Amino acid sequence: MRNTFGHIFTLTSFGESHGIAIGGIVDGMPPGVDIDESFVQTELNRRKPGQSKITSQRKENDKVEFLSGIFDGKSTGMPIAFIIRNNDQHSEDYQNLKNVFRPSHADFTYFKKYGIRDYRGGGRASARENIARVVAGALAKMVLKKWNIQIKAYTSQVGNIILDKPYHELNLNLIESNSVRCPDNHTAHLMEQLIMNVKKEGDTIGGTISCVIKNCPVGIGEPQFNKLHADLGAAMLGINAVKGFEYGMGFNALDKKGSEMNDIFVNDNGIISTTTNNSGGIQGGITNGQDIFFRLAFKPVATLLKTQNTVDINGNVTTVNPKGRHDPCVLPRAVPVVEAMAAIVILDHCLIKNAYNNF
Amino acid sequence: MRNTFGHIFTLTSFGESHGIAIGGIVDGMPPGVDIDESFVQTELNRRKPGQSKITSQRKENDKVEFLSGIFDGKSTGMPIAFIIRNNDQHSEDYQNLKNVFRPSHADFTYFKKYGIRDYRGGGRASARENIARVVAGALAKMVLKKWNIQIKAYTSQVGNIILDKPYHELNLNLIESNSVRCPDNHTAHLMEQLIMNVKKEGDTIGGTISCVIKNCPVGIGEPQFNKLHADLGAAMLGINAVKGFEYGMGFNALDKKGSEMNDIFVNDNGIISTTTNNSGGIQGGITNGQDIFFRLAFKPVATLLKTQNTVDINGNVTTVNPKGRHDPCVLPRAVPVVEAMAAIVILDHCLIKNAYNNF
Amino acid sequence: MRNTFGHIFTLTSFGESHGIAIGGIVDGMPPGVDIDESFVQTELNRRKPGQSKITSQRKENDKVEFLSGIFDGKSTGMPIAFIIRNNDQHSEDYQNLKNVFRPSHADFTYFKKYGIRDYRGGGRASARENIARVVAGALAKMVLKKWNIQIKAYTSQVGNIILDKPYHELNLNLIESNSVRCPDNHTAHLMEQLIMNVKKEGDTIGGTISCVIKNCPVGIGEPQFNKLHADLGAAMLGINAVKGFEYGMGFNALDKKGSEMNDIFVNDNGIISTTTNNSGGIQGGITNGQDIFFRLAFKPVATLLKTQNTVDINGNVTTVNPKGRHDPCVLPRAVPVVEAMAAIVILDHCLIKNAYNNF
Amino acid sequence: MRNTFGHIFTLTSFGESHGIAIGGIVDGMPPGVDIDESFVQTELNRRKPGQSKITSQRKENDKVEFLSGIFDGKSTGMPIAFIIRNNDQHSEDYQNLKNVFRPSHADFTYFKKYGIRDYRGGGRASARENIARVVAGALAKMVLKKWNIQIKAYTSQVGNIILDKPYHELNLNLIESNSVRCPDNHTAHLMEQLIMNVKKEGDTIGGTISCVIKNCPVGIGEPQFNKLHADLGAAMLGINAVKGFEYGMGFNALDKKGSEMNDIFVNDNGIISTTTNNSGGIQGGITNGQDIFFRLAFKPVATLLKTQNTVDINGNVTTVNPKGRHDPCVLPRAVPVVEAMAAIVILDHCLIKNAYNNF
Repeated sequence: MRNTFGHIFTLTSFGESHGIAIGGIVDGMPPGVDIDESFVQTELNRRKPGQSKITSQRKENDKVEFLSGIFDGKSTGMPIAFIIRNNDQHSEDYQNLKNVFRPSHADFTYFKKYGIRDYRGGGRASARENIARVVAGALAKMVLKKWNIQIKAYTSQVGNIILDKPYHELNLNLIESNSVRCPDNHTAHLMEQLIMNVKKEGDTIGGTISCVIKNCPVGIGEPQFNKLHADLGAAMLGINAVKGFEYGMGFNALDKKGSEMNDIFVNDNGIISTTTNNSGGIQGGITNGQDIFFRLAFKPVATLLKTQNTVDINGNVTTVNPKGRHDPCVLPRAVPVVEAMAAIVILDHCLIKNAYNNF
Repeated sequence: MRNTFGHIFTLTSFGESHGIAIGGIVDGMPPGVDIDESFVQTELNRRKPGQSKITSQRKENDKVEFLSGIFDGKSTGMPIAFIIRNNDQHSEDYQNLKNVFRPSHADFTYFKKYGIRDYRGGGRASARENIARVVAGALAKMVLKKWNIQIKAYTSQVGNIILDKPYHELNLNLIESNSVRCPDNHTAHLMEQLIMNVKKEGDTIGGTISCVIKNCPVGIGEPQFNKLHADLGAAMLGINAVKGFEYGMGFNALDKKGSEMNDIFVNDNGIISTTTNNSGGIQGGITNGQDIFFRLAFKPVATLLKTQNTVDINGNVTTVNPKGRHDPCVLPRAVPVVEAMAAIVILDHCLIKNAYNNF
Repeated sequence: MRNTFGHIFTLTSFGESHGIAIGGIVDGMPPGVDIDESFVQTELNRRKPGQSKITSQRKENDKVEFLSGIFDGKSTGMPIAFIIRNNDQHSEDYQNLKNVFRPSHADFTYFKKYGIRDYRGGGRASARENIARVVAGALAKMVLKKWNIQIKAYTSQVGNIILDKPYHELNLNLIESNSVRCPDNHTAHLMEQLIMNVKKEGDTIGGTISCVIKNCPVGIGEPQFNKLHADLGAAMLGINAVKGFEYGMGFNALDKKGSEMNDIFVNDNGIISTTTNNSGGIQGGITNGQDIFFRLAFKPVATLLKTQNTVDINGNVTTVNPKGRHDPCVLPRAVPVVEAMAAIVILDHCLIKNAYNNF
Repeated sequence: MRNTFGHIFTLTSFGESHGIAIGGIVDGMPPGVDIDESFVQTELNRRKPGQSKITSQRKENDKVEFLSGIFDGKSTGMPIAFIIRNNDQHSEDYQNLKNVFRPSHADFTYFKKYGIRDYRGGGRASARENIARVVAGALAKMVLKKWNIQIKAYTSQVGNIILDKPYHELNLNLIESNSVRCPDNHTAHLMEQLIMNVKKEGDTIGGTISCVIKNCPVGIGEPQFNKLHADLGAAMLGINAVKGFEYGMGFNALDKKGSEMNDIFVNDNGIISTTTNNSGGIQGGITNGQDIFFRLAFKPVATLLKTQNTVDINGNVTTVNPKGRHDPCVLPRAVPVVEAMAAIVILDHCLIKNAYNNF
């Protein structure tokens, strides 16, 4: 159950890594929105394997086909279904994994939960499912653009290489200028070197992605269980390999006092603003008009090109040495996924707010 | 909208800090469970104000009244409604805040979102709403106990005082032995001193709470949008003042490689176990039978007993100097809330799993 | 599970007939609406037992207490909780029913489903739960009134006494002018006589309630699974004793052809209208601006003041002869419940439509 | 919004009559179930156009392609996506309807609600969407078969031709023996003649479909808003052209008293049964182990091959004379749709019950 995300703007996704196709249904798209299919493809290309030497070399063109909900180039308010067929599966690479549980993968837990699993390429546990999220996020972004809401994610740490500037000191236009998607080319270069070194070892590395949302209207988010940051957190923690979420000052500045952390309200030419933004744009679960920002921890990819000990489905000790094509670092391709999930959450909450407006 | 949490075991909560009552409805309680009302009260007492010198001195007995769903001391499967009446409101303390936005509170965002707000004691944004969560959590714990599932949260950092041992090196039976709920009495003492000092300054301080869940069965959690840690994260981020969530290794060990982080499977006398537990008991969103652990960042309480600059609802610059009774540090009273929300999530997912069993 | 009704304007109800209280939580109430508590009480009084000689003589003042979500006489957008305490339970009347299944009641099915049941007065299966619906409906009506949307239900058949005029030939202002709530005093008198005769026999009788909704805006309702009439149908079929729902021409005119049933569009002074309204105001699941009307079949109340054969929980043959105070005919008191559920559905769909407006 | 049906076994459907494809995603399928794709195709063929002279002559092979959730011929517990491509659209037949509202169709309401519509063949309002329901229903039936739960629907009235026997006096094996799907060949013949006559006139006719569900376990259904018959009713009222739903005695026998309608419990060789089944197998919203039966009213198809008056999108009076290929009577092809939706509801409620079992 529960392959649906969102309240009134929703994505229901489907598909396995080596199945016939990945796809989904977006429900709740406002009608009359111009659908720019080339933009969807651009977003998918940012997530596509084989885009650079630091990503998996699986060859997929990841071409999206829309099946419904669009007429004369516009959304009709009906559900928008889409599929992306899998091409370059190399499923034979996984035959030896049929009865073996790869360490820190979902092999063991799926098998125990369902009694059956599609072991090819991780089946549904593969990050290839994220394709559906990117498509839904691209649709959401088309609506958000009308309101000038901008969402930018970027790689802010790989292993011990840390981009230690806050987002407002960075030129976010540089994000796409390097393969690691870090808006500082010097740091990006160090990150790429680290990833290449790790790759040579057959090993993997994690890090952090940061995200900033600008121009979000005041009043988005619900007071209790669907605080905006709780829904954002759930969205982000649902992305493969994410182990932590923080917004505003998060886990930093825990040694600071309330008098140092409170954001003082000021009247900025008729608009109520704050002198600092330690809150990360959200107070009491609801946007206050300041920039929203958050940060995610990604663990290193579990698939190593190294021999590891493990057990098989009968509990016998064995070893595993995967042959699949994998990413040494998931972050560069996860950046568009983070943006996509953020876009879904923001649009969803804009629509919720809209439901109660004008009374 | 959206004052309901959970999928099939749900809590719908209501109430404002200075309204008539706080309460809720728990739906989806399995029938035939012995309801121990004194246990519910014990849990509420752990969250109650006035329990020690480091908490708010508001005097509430927080006595719960159950209204439905219990018959002959057992749950009937019908919704369990409950209320806790507010007694010691001192609403007059808040008259001066009627038209003023306290910094880093929800005053501004509620007013902008709804055009109206109950300004007394923060209204619905008050952490007093957590009472409903503690009651629902206590009911969930009654079911989880039958399966020997144990949930323990504790204060692991206050300001710069850090409990730097992992949970398995601690004696968790000590949690309730001090007012700060830290299972190391020496560290607890330092934390208490820090809180008392901060209180004297009229200031506040944040920190972290850690939580461990033992004996959770294998196979709990959903593969995509409701990964167990995503639902846990959403639950925790919905608690007032929480700014970050991490599970397993989280934001730590970002400089470690996959070969250092993967948890190797072993056959432990017929049970498949792992040599390490960097995954925090969850792989691919589903429990693997190891201990679940996670950690939360809390910001310092926004209410200071100090004069702060701010603006009023007309945008005029003014100052605010609250008179209410407040906690200098929210962590000690948040510990039972963290446990309660964890219990709700775990029971909910156990029931979901149960729906598909026996096929 | 599932004691919540609605999508974004929701009622979660609780309570048993002889428990401490009946009540609920309304979530999604638009903020800033003037709350007229006396109107809520008026609506409750229409459903109250003991209001006339043809209803149950149970003495309940059914006084509602609001606990949250209202401030300075207005809705705040927060959940509105309310309770109505039970007073005149006479639970001892039910001791003899503890181990016996009354025919055509929910005694047997609840026992088999839950293994435990509150047998006093039918427990949660009692129509007394409808109190919660009436309160939520009254709140919904307060919003609908602002848009001039009117909902009127009335008794249109009792046993073989049929009010055979369509609603537009009736004076709906007469509904409250007689105890049976039929807007034709002659027919009402015949119905009352029938009910009194049936009551003398210790027997019961069913019938139909009709409902008309005027001034509903065009465009309310969803195209597929939440067609407006499907949501109305679900709402109505959830009311105790309802066995059938039809809207527009429903089960009537099944011998008519499409050419006789189609509603021809005309331009009525600039507004697109129809010459007939066989569709009952809904086409393709969505309102077309014409009056909505539907009709419900109610079975006779299952509780008879007569001895009936049955079995006990051990399967032994026995007899049952209830002593409780019951209605010989449920229709007069069900009229406000029908209106309440209709109001909830209409407001809910107005809010859904609102979510996607203004794009 | 809201193209999803069900609670934990869910169908999310998509597609327009003349779009690229119709399809859906089934979520919550229990794992390990043998998937018989030929059975799915058999069910689709029962709904397919062109199957007899009394149905639309549109030529569609309605071949289903499954995209996910099935591995080695078994369900994996992952979402099952499927598509059926449209082939024989003849969209040019609809160019003249671009700006015209066909009477009693959804043209007007969709246009007013969304401001845009796919006018080709009714777009998403077409009954062709039902394909998705039939596929999901076939999957549900595969699970229900394991428990021997049987669902049979049949045409029980066409215009004034009425099959006036109760279901237990009929040989339900005859349902598929004639083109109208009526389990009495003499009555079926009269129905076919009537349909052919109506077709010659370019007109259409409605009627009723009855459905019986056997061997449903005791205890399925929820007490309040999701009474089993309320969920069945919502499912059925969501089918195109359905104007009424009744179960058990429904709108019949309204002149009968409680003493005539109550179903007396008896001990039937150790199993608690009832002497009559006026309740239709459901008491208090929950199954009692007796057969479930219900009946639906269908209006005549709105598309006539006759000239009708109407207005266009500018409100100008005009005429409409459709050229599309349409059914003179929807009932024969709706029979499998009724069964499919019933199967979805029953399986969904079986899973809900399962969630709380074994405590």
